[in-house]
Amino acid sequence: MSLSVDLNADMGESFGPWTMGDDAALLDVVTSANIACGFHAGDPDVMAHTMRAAVERGVGIGAHPGFADLQGFGRRRMQVPVATLQNAIRYQTAAAIGMARAMGTQVRHLKLHGALSNMCSEDEELARACYEAALSVDPDLIIMVLAATPMQAAVEKLGCAWAGEIFADRAYNDDGTLVDRRQPGAMIHDPAIVGPRMAEMVKDGAIRTESGARLETRIDTICVHGDTAEAVALARAVRNSLEAAGIALRQFG
Amino acid sequence: MSLSVDLNADMGESFGPWTMGDDAALLDVVTSANIACGFHAGDPDVMAHTMRAAVERGVGIGAHPGFADLQGFGRRRMQVPVATLQNAIRYQTAAAIGMARAMGTQVRHLKLHGALSNMCSEDEELARACYEAALSVDPDLIIMVLAATPMQAAVEKLGCAWAGEIFADRAYNDDGTLVDRRQPGAMIHDPAIVGPRMAEMVKDGAIRTESGARLETRIDTICVHGDTAEAVALARAVRNSLEAAGIALRQFG
Amino acid sequence: MSLSVDLNADMGESFGPWTMGDDAALLDVVTSANIACGFHAGDPDVMAHTMRAAVERGVGIGAHPGFADLQGFGRRRMQVPVATLQNAIRYQTAAAIGMARAMGTQVRHLKLHGALSNMCSEDEELARACYEAALSVDPDLIIMVLAATPMQAAVEKLGCAWAGEIFADRAYNDDGTLVDRRQPGAMIHDPAIVGPRMAEMVKDGAIRTESGARLETRIDTICVHGDTAEAVALARAVRNSLEAAGIALRQFG
Amino acid sequence: MSLSVDLNADMGESFGPWTMGDDAALLDVVTSANIACGFHAGDPDVMAHTMRAAVERGVGIGAHPGFADLQGFGRRRMQVPVATLQNAIRYQTAAAIGMARAMGTQVRHLKLHGALSNMCSEDEELARACYEAALSVDPDLIIMVLAATPMQAAVEKLGCAWAGEIFADRAYNDDGTLVDRRQPGAMIHDPAIVGPRMAEMVKDGAIRTESGARLETRIDTICVHGDTAEAVALARAVRNSLEAAGIALRQFG
Repeated sequence: MSLSVDLNADMGESFGPWTMGDDAALLDVVTSANIACGFHAGDPDVMAHTMRAAVERGVGIGAHPGFADLQGFGRRRMQVPVATLQNAIRYQTAAAIGMARAMGTQVRHLKLHGALSNMCSEDEELARACYEAALSVDPDLIIMVLAATPMQAAVEKLGCAWAGEIFADRAYNDDGTLVDRRQPGAMIHDPAIVGPRMAEMVKDGAIRTESGARLETRIDTICVHGDTAEAVALARAVRNSLEAAGIALRQFG
Repeated sequence: MSLSVDLNADMGESFGPWTMGDDAALLDVVTSANIACGFHAGDPDVMAHTMRAAVERGVGIGAHPGFADLQGFGRRRMQVPVATLQNAIRYQTAAAIGMARAMGTQVRHLKLHGALSNMCSEDEELARACYEAALSVDPDLIIMVLAATPMQAAVEKLGCAWAGEIFADRAYNDDGTLVDRRQPGAMIHDPAIVGPRMAEMVKDGAIRTESGARLETRIDTICVHGDTAEAVALARAVRNSLEAAGIALRQFG
Repeated sequence: MSLSVDLNADMGESFGPWTMGDDAALLDVVTSANIACGFHAGDPDVMAHTMRAAVERGVGIGAHPGFADLQGFGRRRMQVPVATLQNAIRYQTAAAIGMARAMGTQVRHLKLHGALSNMCSEDEELARACYEAALSVDPDLIIMVLAATPMQAAVEKLGCAWAGEIFADRAYNDDGTLVDRRQPGAMIHDPAIVGPRMAEMVKDGAIRTESGARLETRIDTICVHGDTAEAVALARAVRNSLEAAGIALRQFG
Repeated sequence: MSLSVDLNADMGESFGPWTMGDDAALLDVVTSANIACGFHAGDPDVMAHTMRAAVERGVGIGAHPGFADLQGFGRRRMQVPVATLQNAIRYQTAAAIGMARAMGTQVRHLKLHGALSNMCSEDEELARACYEAALSVDPDLIIMVLAATPMQAAVEKLGCAWAGEIFADRAYNDDGTLVDRRQPGAMIHDPAIVGPRMAEMVKDGAIRTESGARLETRIDTICVHGDTAEAVALARAVRNSLEAAGIALRQFG
């Protein structure tokens, strides 16, 4: 049986007159698109346009909800009551699902954004509450989780469909968390390193940490970025390395 | 065969810390609730709470989208490109549909709000564009239109399910438009008049205009209000008069 | 020399179509109004209207900035970079100052709102950053601080004009913090107790804690509320008790 | 006496994570910056940053208020009651004035944005209401008006300080209005034409219309754009042509 992996990126993060990222270029590289739902980025026009473009390229669509914080781009932690957070996730997920239906397609997965994702990657109970909210709108959603974090524990207990994700451009600590951005070596920008590194991890079925340790985990999807020309080049390098290693690029699920 | 009619009211128009209307009281009177979708009023918590309350009373749920204008409560006309308007309606309708699903129920109808409704009641093409957008999210939605206006012409041409609506507390001109609020007699506040008047119109299948003319039209639902205690009392009077006249209160469709 | 104290309340917390509190009633009771600046509540119309009403009653006007979080009413903590927080405070304070000028009056004081106030009452450095931001717009502002907290330490070090505040309806711990709302006795609702209690504290120049301890502090102003009819009655009781005890109601500064 | 003219451009139109225009490049070309005030673009951080940069280059600062419509960038007409519009202008103007003070500088002029500007250029009464609102915050503001439109009539009757503006890249009709963008020749993009054309109009003290007619008017400032690299190049060409023609670049007032 041949190996395959998904390549995902955040998209649809423009808003009104403001453009962010090169979604068109990225759609030629990835197999799944996490589409902002209007609370931290994206507006109904951007969502519609991005979904239509994803459908044309055969890229899978995911809802990508975040905190209601446009100025902060959903990157600022907020102390929101869990029930309120759940309704915010229901609302955004629902908006994405219906918009996708109007565009003749469907939302297949869910991935949390920014500070909300960070908080859930540290807190299984919060992650579970967020995922339950999304699944209450559509029980067939595939939940994308940071592999080997409390997010994964949450989906395993929920028994829902899920996809384990690793980052192409980040170094890992031995406990599966990401090396702090402020540490040297936390970000890996060299395409000649990132590509083969990803191919190796997918083949091995394990995260290779900074210290060289091996963290066995399910790797269903790799997260790449598209906010700069360099980022798109890196994403392409990852794709090329995977294909060169005989790993098929294909949506999970 | 017995006569029946629906009684509808706008609900879920609170936002964050601010309360509007007495939804709990109104839910005991009406058979359909038009629920704000977060752009002109309502937030995800208010939507969830209002839908849950509607389900408990067996009241039908409708999506009630409006302009993205919280301060103006969606009552200020905005010159929005039609494609943008359509996406805004898709987004709001979708959010309501998914939230209803999460609450174990479903959205059965759509009614436009405020300035957007006013604009569509004067412009068949705009009405059609808005309704097509909503139907692209769910083709089974029942579209609520102001009876005998360009809105009705739009749904008839679309061939979709629709419900014709009249206002309990407004006087009508001979062309089916509402008498301008600034005219004496435009608003009818006396429960002893409003109740029997509605029973008569429903039985007759026609709007009775201010001049006494008779405008034959389909009357599927009557719009009442709940923003004041007086409004709730008027809504109750309408319900009582209809029942006393042997007209059953029942959802359309 | 006769004793005097200021009575302050939050006002102008309506937004668009939504009303909050009975500002008109409260303006007859208090001597200072803390006016929301549009980020957590209030809009330009509400600000203008509330300021005009305050001027008519001779009530002093304060800027009352908070987090940009309308749905959460500024009561949810947000992790905002300090420089961003400072600009948000500058913006809101500036808006209030100019609006007051347009209404023929001026902003005399500044009081932080909600979660932002809570965070600053625990963090002298954050409080100082917020106050410096406000003073960069108008160095003559009188900063209202929770007496005997890190807020007071911040203004003392800044050397700016300030007013120390106590709450009419809250019990105090021995370290000057408020008894947690979830504890029995944390809220004091009985006008027959609250009024005399305030008069005693002002005369004594000290907070009386729940355990009976005496915390000497400057008491320039007492915070009352106006969100319910009961709250307004309590505010009146405080005013009556103070006057009966020979304490003049008068703005600080 | 030597001729001089001001060169103005809209700036500070970024928002949160989204960048718009090349303000840094443009600040080397213009003499006045119209800074968005947070309703249609700009946020407190962007305002602070843009004002600081303007001060460093000795560029004059203006408040640039617009409709509260971030998604539409203030370019969609809204039917807002005049009193509400006035308060929105007071609020934005005040925010800009106080922010400028915090940055050690001051707001010297006011220019309306987008759809609000378009509406006022057709309606003297509306223009007057908007300008009165701004002047109620600061009576010394210089009002920037589209030369030879109802805006100019409004400021002349108000008797306030004002500056007449022409567009570098637009063709004019004989009545002083701009040629509709959809007409061929409405936009003038060739630097070799735009530069000398502006120098000629300033020297002549008159707008040259498309038909060749001469509209005598006060030309205090020329509007250029900075949203694309091409736009910045055009702005530089205008500046160079003016200087080559012996016209000094200098703020009005």
